[in-house]
Amino acid sequence: MYNYPRPLTKLINELSKLPGIGGKTAQRLAFHILSVNDDEAFELAEAIGVAKKEMKYCSVCGNLTDSDPCGICSDTARDQSAICVVETPRDVAAVERMKEYRGLYHVLHGAISPMDGIGPEDINLKQLIVRLRQSDQVKEVIIATNPNIEGEATAMYAAKLIKPSGIKVSRIAHGVPVGGDLDYTDEITLSKALEGRREL
Amino acid sequence: MYNYPRPLTKLINELSKLPGIGGKTAQRLAFHILSVNDDEAFELAEAIGVAKKEMKYCSVCGNLTDSDPCGICSDTARDQSAICVVETPRDVAAVERMKEYRGLYHVLHGAISPMDGIGPEDINLKQLIVRLRQSDQVKEVIIATNPNIEGEATAMYAAKLIKPSGIKVSRIAHGVPVGGDLDYTDEITLSKALEGRREL
Repeated sequence: MYNYPRPLTKLINELSKLPGIGGKTAQRLAFHILSVNDDEAFELAEAIGVAKKEMKYCSVCGNLTDSDPCGICSDTARDQSAICVVETPRDVAAVERMKEYRGLYHVLHGAISPMDGIGPEDINLKQLIVRLRQSDQVKEVIIATNPNIEGEATAMYAAKLIKPSGIKVSRIAHGVPVGGDLDYTDEITLSKALEGRREL
Repeated sequence: MYNYPRPLTKLINELSKLPGIGGKTAQRLAFHILSVNDDEAFELAEAIGVAKKEMKYCSVCGNLTDSDPCGICSDTARDQSAICVVETPRDVAAVERMKEYRGLYHVLHGAISPMDGIGPEDINLKQLIVRLRQSDQVKEVIIATNPNIEGEATAMYAAKLIKPSGIKVSRIAHGVPVGGDLDYTDEITLSKALEGRREL
């Protein structure tokens, strides 16, 4: 059996550890990296190292950042009265892409999932409560965890924790996605859409 | 508009230069790299650097290798009388995976393609002729360039160059792929399959 030379095998192995990158794709990427000029390959290697070294989590909201507090937390032009609670830094990016929300964020880094042994103590929830207690500006917490069982459980749990403080807690709406097709919408989504109907 | 912190943007940009990796996938990979432990990320970065530094082209056959001559060229147990001509190092791996061919290789690093301005001088063909002239052991050159216009043109051109030396030149067979369906086979492949029919 023909084996690739060791450095190439190692590179293929490392690449195939990435999510969604199978053996074939890893080979294709490895051969590509070997075929480009040295500068381009080293830039990729360096970008990985630099990102790993410089990126950290914001001590206030838990978002990924290269400065602490992060750009959003330290932006006084943003609405300090609203905190949007999400599961991951990618969700922050998704909400920001919309360009409509101008409040703050709180990243939980996960969701409560008893099946996976993840309890309330394992996500960044305690820090949210501390944060709410220390601030008298927050008027509303918008819970934008994922619309699945874990996200719902997390939303319920967080709401129960926050409500006694008198701060308004809201949940993003469930419903039929815009551009979607009623016919192809699953029953749970459809029933949520009906339940959340608004007068025109 | 929300921008990712600079080190993250840089990493996403570098990842999206890889073939088949679009913006969304690059983001997913970047976030994954930031979420794994430092060791795993640095191993990937290092694997890229090491592969780039240690991998070179065999001075005999042009295959990717970390030793020169490569493992195949320096393996005296292999059949020194046959050279299989392929376009890329990946093709060497493909033929080797078959575990049937025990001869040597020659990697052209491309194919003649007038449309893209790639002539016979731009691929590793001259070196093959020099190699054949220097060796009196080679009895057959098997041309396994891709079964497309560029591969065919390269095969024809190489055959014309080699034939005067008296060395046998052969081309891998075109035909219906094993497990394929006649109904779904394009006409050119089918006509090649008919043309190349063998008596049973």
